[in-house]
Amino acid sequence: MFFTKMHGCGNDYVYVDGSKEIIEQSKKSEIARIVSDRHFGIGSDGLIFINPVDDDSIDFEMEMYNADGSRSEMCGNGIRCVAKYVYDNRLTDKTDLVIVSAGKKKYINLEIGTDNLVFSVKVDMGAPILAASEVPVAVKSDISTDRSSLPSATRELLSSMPDIVIDTPVIIDGKEWKITCVSMGNPHAVVFLPEDVNLDSFEIEKIGPRFENNSIFPNRTNTEFVKVDDRGNVHMRVWERGTGETLACGTGCCATTVACVLNGLTDNRVAVHVLGGIVTCTWDGNAESSVIMEGPATTVFTGEIDL
Amino acid sequence: MFFTKMHGCGNDYVYVDGSKEIIEQSKKSEIARIVSDRHFGIGSDGLIFINPVDDDSIDFEMEMYNADGSRSEMCGNGIRCVAKYVYDNRLTDKTDLVIVSAGKKKYINLEIGTDNLVFSVKVDMGAPILAASEVPVAVKSDISTDRSSLPSATRELLSSMPDIVIDTPVIIDGKEWKITCVSMGNPHAVVFLPEDVNLDSFEIEKIGPRFENNSIFPNRTNTEFVKVDDRGNVHMRVWERGTGETLACGTGCCATTVACVLNGLTDNRVAVHVLGGIVTCTWDGNAESSVIMEGPATTVFTGEIDL
Repeated sequence: MFFTKMHGCGNDYVYVDGSKEIIEQSKKSEIARIVSDRHFGIGSDGLIFINPVDDDSIDFEMEMYNADGSRSEMCGNGIRCVAKYVYDNRLTDKTDLVIVSAGKKKYINLEIGTDNLVFSVKVDMGAPILAASEVPVAVKSDISTDRSSLPSATRELLSSMPDIVIDTPVIIDGKEWKITCVSMGNPHAVVFLPEDVNLDSFEIEKIGPRFENNSIFPNRTNTEFVKVDDRGNVHMRVWERGTGETLACGTGCCATTVACVLNGLTDNRVAVHVLGGIVTCTWDGNAESSVIMEGPATTVFTGEIDL
Repeated sequence: MFFTKMHGCGNDYVYVDGSKEIIEQSKKSEIARIVSDRHFGIGSDGLIFINPVDDDSIDFEMEMYNADGSRSEMCGNGIRCVAKYVYDNRLTDKTDLVIVSAGKKKYINLEIGTDNLVFSVKVDMGAPILAASEVPVAVKSDISTDRSSLPSATRELLSSMPDIVIDTPVIIDGKEWKITCVSMGNPHAVVFLPEDVNLDSFEIEKIGPRFENNSIFPNRTNTEFVKVDDRGNVHMRVWERGTGETLACGTGCCATTVACVLNGLTDNRVAVHVLGGIVTCTWDGNAESSVIMEGPATTVFTGEIDL
């Protein structure tokens, strides 16, 4: 099987052209487990097949497997690599693409370098889901809280949708934290760390699981711990539900940007510095507006494996 | 750069044919760091160049770098893969090879399968170093200990070389352990675990560093924790000096076999079951005799990377 190893901010997958490598559907899960093993296989966070689609409104399908062989619905870092793969390998010459993953369409725009290869990918990640019941998160925003410091757009949002969880105090592991909750298809709790807490030495392995499994999150949660640098830059570490700390989480960068804008901590465009690189997200503060995520996609090597 | 990814019992390296890929010596260390990264690079425990040698008594040179870019002198799992590489890729048709690593010759014998590919590799690992001062380890064998249960060959060895550390009690982390110390070019402390200790759940992350950094080991030590199954099989977990727990350690398997034979716990041929597979070692109990290590070498995939 011919493959290409790519990563988006260190989130790395094995990419296979499904039009050339014809593999029985029943074997893909096991192949994902084999190739993902970092000592006995190729080594990756999972396996992604890039398939042709018999539908004029869609350019390609992304068929994604986690390292444990389970199916995955979407991955922000992965879809950027899919977009780079199809353009760089001349499977398309379009710079606006529709890629479908687990039945859902994603709209993508490519930036092409002077070498005629993709160097940056923008993905329309859809509108954030803010209603607490839909995130889901089982805390109530405290109506008595002084909201006068929030941006006017946020106060307007709150008047029509009062159950958004913004800067809301919760007790986790015996300590008070203020959380802002956003779903990007998956649940996120965003925590802005106080000035005196150092993000690099923050014990995410200890506190991450306490958030993930706290009873206020009925579907568990991803948690982003964030320090704001200025109106356009934040540093973030992420604890992913079911995985632990990762180098980058695309939906986490989007959720963090939404939380920054809701709390008035940044402008609408935020460079989110994660352990694996920088992802830039834009959101205009309207509940119906999409979050646009922009970030790098990197080809590391090509290879061939006997299965 | 064209490369092949191979592993021996899960100890995995990127292998490069140094006769075809001409790389500046000053850049090799940085290339090793780049390719070894498991998220941004190829992902491996290090990088090994297989070089031609201008000396009729030597077949190939193995030039080895660790994942951090430092030079490594020898690796039992790595040299088996080098031997498989040169035969399978038809760089030689010999089945008895001399491979030099860091100036030291190693003698190798290949077993060839019906597919005309190497399926098992024997390596002469040289004689074990037993004198405590040369391992080095700073404890004295307790002369008052009853040695009558040891094999006669071991009692003979002890009469001519009384400072061998065999089944000697030491206090580490507030607990008594019995250690047998062997150098295979690098220092090893072998601990046979009591019946009531479970090897799978043994807290090697906690106790391994206590052995490694104990003052009785002036050059620190690798430590093998071993359960004897029968006269020909043992299970072992290894804490490698400077690295932590690994899936397999070739010199550790040799040291464990020597310790088994010295203590009369097994016959001379021992299948050492490690987390990454099985390595079989043979030693006849004579201080001057080589340990012969036999184990698998596996080709995982071939690839090409732009550096």
